[in-house]
Amino acid sequence: MSLDCLFNPESIALVGAAHSEEKLGGVILKNLLKFRGRVYPVNPNYTELMGLKTYPSAKDISESIDLTIIIRPASEVPEILKELQDKTKCVIIASSGFAEIGQKKLQDEVKKIGKEIGVRILGPNCMGLYNPYQRLDTFFLPYERLRRPKKGNASVVSQSGAILSCLLAALRKANTGISKAIGYGNAIDIDESDIYEYLCEDKDTQVVISYIESVGDGRKFIEKAKMVSEKKPFIILKAGKGLSGEKAAFSHTGRLAGKYEIFHSIIKQFGIKEAMDFDELIDAAKALSYQRPSKGSRVCIITNGGGSGVLSADECMRYGLDVAKLPDDKAERLGHLFPYFYGINNPIDLTAQVRDEDYITALNELKDDYDGFIIIALPNVMGITKRLPEMIKNAITDMNKPVVFHIPVNGVAKRLISHLEKMKIPVYPSPERAVRGLKALLMF
Amino acid sequence: MSLDCLFNPESIALVGAAHSEEKLGGVILKNLLKFRGRVYPVNPNYTELMGLKTYPSAKDISESIDLTIIIRPASEVPEILKELQDKTKCVIIASSGFAEIGQKKLQDEVKKIGKEIGVRILGPNCMGLYNPYQRLDTFFLPYERLRRPKKGNASVVSQSGAILSCLLAALRKANTGISKAIGYGNAIDIDESDIYEYLCEDKDTQVVISYIESVGDGRKFIEKAKMVSEKKPFIILKAGKGLSGEKAAFSHTGRLAGKYEIFHSIIKQFGIKEAMDFDELIDAAKALSYQRPSKGSRVCIITNGGGSGVLSADECMRYGLDVAKLPDDKAERLGHLFPYFYGINNPIDLTAQVRDEDYITALNELKDDYDGFIIIALPNVMGITKRLPEMIKNAITDMNKPVVFHIPVNGVAKRLISHLEKMKIPVYPSPERAVRGLKALLMF
Repeated sequence: MSLDCLFNPESIALVGAAHSEEKLGGVILKNLLKFRGRVYPVNPNYTELMGLKTYPSAKDISESIDLTIIIRPASEVPEILKELQDKTKCVIIASSGFAEIGQKKLQDEVKKIGKEIGVRILGPNCMGLYNPYQRLDTFFLPYERLRRPKKGNASVVSQSGAILSCLLAALRKANTGISKAIGYGNAIDIDESDIYEYLCEDKDTQVVISYIESVGDGRKFIEKAKMVSEKKPFIILKAGKGLSGEKAAFSHTGRLAGKYEIFHSIIKQFGIKEAMDFDELIDAAKALSYQRPSKGSRVCIITNGGGSGVLSADECMRYGLDVAKLPDDKAERLGHLFPYFYGINNPIDLTAQVRDEDYITALNELKDDYDGFIIIALPNVMGITKRLPEMIKNAITDMNKPVVFHIPVNGVAKRLISHLEKMKIPVYPSPERAVRGLKALLMF
Repeated sequence: MSLDCLFNPESIALVGAAHSEEKLGGVILKNLLKFRGRVYPVNPNYTELMGLKTYPSAKDISESIDLTIIIRPASEVPEILKELQDKTKCVIIASSGFAEIGQKKLQDEVKKIGKEIGVRILGPNCMGLYNPYQRLDTFFLPYERLRRPKKGNASVVSQSGAILSCLLAALRKANTGISKAIGYGNAIDIDESDIYEYLCEDKDTQVVISYIESVGDGRKFIEKAKMVSEKKPFIILKAGKGLSGEKAAFSHTGRLAGKYEIFHSIIKQFGIKEAMDFDELIDAAKALSYQRPSKGSRVCIITNGGGSGVLSADECMRYGLDVAKLPDDKAERLGHLFPYFYGINNPIDLTAQVRDEDYITALNELKDDYDGFIIIALPNVMGITKRLPEMIKNAITDMNKPVVFHIPVNGVAKRLISHLEKMKIPVYPSPERAVRGLKALLMF
C-alpha cells in the first residue's frame, strides 16, 4: 500500500484534539488549521474546537479518513485504534509511553491491532509529519517554539523527534527548504525503509537526509537505502557509535542500536554516504539541496585571504580532495592578467587588493580544469562589493560544476550571503565547512 | 625590552595617514581616533587630518613616540624607518609587498635597518593590534566591514591578517570578548614567541589562541609556547597540514611551513594543545574564556532530547571523555525523584515532559560524581522556560566544575542563550560542538 495516505492525505482526523495550545492536542490542532484538506477534531467533550466542528469519536465522522492522528495517553491507544477499523487508512500515534519506557507489551498489542484492522501506523512516540507542499504539519510543537523551514527539495527522516526538530531548526538557519520532514519514533509498522522507498519516487524530494539510532530489519534497510541513494543524494547520520552512545540509543527508543563498526562497514560497502556529525549532515544537505552533484575530485580554491585558503586546502586533503596544481599554461596566463603580487597557485591568492572581477577571471580561465570550486570572499576589504553574487552567477551558468563559498558572518556579509544563496550558491561560515559542503557534491 | 610600547603605548604616530577611508591610511587614522592616548598623523601634504594636527615627518613631532605605524608603499619603508631613529620605540609595518611576494631582499634591508636603529618591529605585511582596554585599534579595516568583539579576556595571535579578521568575527558571534588581538605577518622581528611571552604576563589575558602557518625559530617557539601553556589555557591552530596546504602556506608568508607531522608530535610532547579546525578553535576559546579548566574526564550529560544526548555521548567517546554510568545509589534516588518514564542513565533523558527543575535536581544529585556537565535544553517544549538560566546559575555556583550547554538556535532560543552566556555559561549550536567546548575545559 502506498504511503500517500500519510504523506499526501486529503482528510485528517485528530483524536485528542484540545481547545488550547497548553495541551499537545491543541498545538497539533492549531498547526492543522493551515492544512489544505479537511480536518476533523475528535474530542467527546466539545462540539467545536478552534472553529471546527468536533466529533465525539472518529466513528461519527461521515467520510472515510486518509490519516488519523492520535494524541491520547498510551493506555487508551488500543481502544482508540480498534474504533478506527474501516474508518482510516493510516494512523500517526504521536503519544509516548510505549517500548521507550519499557511498555513493550502495550506496544506489541498496538502493533497487533494495527495489523488486524489493516491500517498503516507511524510511531508510536513519534513527531509525525511536516509537508509544506500540502501545508500539512502534525507536530506537537508550536510554531513560536520551532519555526519551520520553507518549502524546498530536501527531505528529512528521523527516528528521534528531538533531533528532527534540531535538524529543521538548523536547515532553516542554513536557508535550506524542506519537501517532507518525518519523525517515525518507535517504528512498529512504517519504518525508515518504507519512508526511503516513498521518497525515492517523490518528485518534490531531490535529497534525503536521515538520522538513525537503530535499525529493525537490517536487510530491508540496506535494500531501500541503496535504492534511494542510487536515485538521489542520500546521507545518513548514525547515532550510537560508541559504547556509551550505544547504551543511550538503546534506552531511548527501545530498539537495539547494534555494533556501529558493522553498520559503518556495511553501508560503506553499498555506497551509502554517512555524515560524521550533526553539522556535517546539515552542510551536506544544504549543498545537495542547492546544486547537483558532479564527478571528480579536483578542487580549485580562489581566495582573498591566504590563511583561509590554507585551512581549506588542509581540509580538502583530509577528505581526499585533490587541490591540484594549476596547469602551466593557465598559470602563465593568470600571471599576465593579475597584478604581480597575487599568488598564482592553488589556492589562488587574490590578496587584500582583490576586486570582484578577479574571481571571474580565475573562474573563466580554470573552469575546464577542475571539478569543483571553493570561493573564499572575506568581505572586510573594499574590493568585495555587492556586485559579486550576480557576477559569479553569470560566470558559472552553463559550467555545471559545483561552486561553494566561504564568507565569515560579520558586518556587510549578511546581504552578500543571502544574495548568493538566493541564486543557489551555498555559503559556509568557516573554510572547513565549505570543503565539507563541496565534498558532498563531488563523487569520487 | 618589554613589548609594552606595542601593546600599551601612550603615543602613536601614523606615517601614511590619509584624509578619507578610501585609503588604508585613512581607515587606520579613523580607527585611531578612539585611542585613549595621543595620536600624530604624518603626511607631508596636510597640516590637519580628521581634526588632528598633521606632521610632514615623524621627526617633526616634538615628543618621543611609543609606537609608529607605517602604511606607505613597501619601497618607501626603508627610508621612513631610518627617519624614526631615536624617535620611536616600536614600529608596526602594516604595508605588504615584502617576502610574501618574493621581495626578500627589501625585507632583509628593513630588518637590518630596524636592528641598527634599535626599534622593535611588528610585520611587515601585518594586521597590527587591537587592544580594547586602551581603545587601541591599528587595523586597516573599517568597523562596518569588521565589527570588533567587545572587551574580554581572550587574546588572539595570528600570523595571517585574514584569519585574524575571521577569528574576531567568529569570537564576536560567539559572545567572546578580547583582551589583545594581534596579526604579526612576516615577523622579521617580533614573532609569535615574543607575543606569547608578553601575554603570559598580561593580567587582562586569561586564554590565548594562536593561528600559525610557519615558525621561524622552532626552539624559541616551543619554549615560549610551553611557558604560556603552563600558565594559561593556550590553543594553537596550525595551517598547512598537508602537501597542498604546505605549499599554500609557503607562498602566502614566505616562510617555510615545515612538515606538519613533526610539528604535531613535538607540541603534543610538550603538552601544548591543538585545535583541528577553525570552529574547534573558536569553541574552545569560548569555553576557556567563560570558565576555568578543571581536572578529570568523567562527563555527565543531562538532556531533554534522547537523540541529542546520544550524539553528544558519541562525540565524548571520540575525544576520550568518559560518559560514566550513574552511581547506583544516585540512580536509585533519581528514580524516586523523577517520573517513571524519564531515562535514568547517562545521558539522563528528561524527555519532552521536562520541567526546568529537573535539570537542577539532576545537577544537585550528581555534582560530586562527575568532572563536567553537558546540559542539552531543546527549547521547543513548554517545560523549558526563561527561569532556567538563573536556576542553573544558582545550582552551579560553588560547584567549580565546567558546565556547557547545547541549545539549537531557533525561535525562543535566542533569549535563553544570551541570558546563559551573560552568566558565563557557554552555549553551543550542536551537540558535538558542546562536547568540544567541554573538552577544552577538562584536563585529562
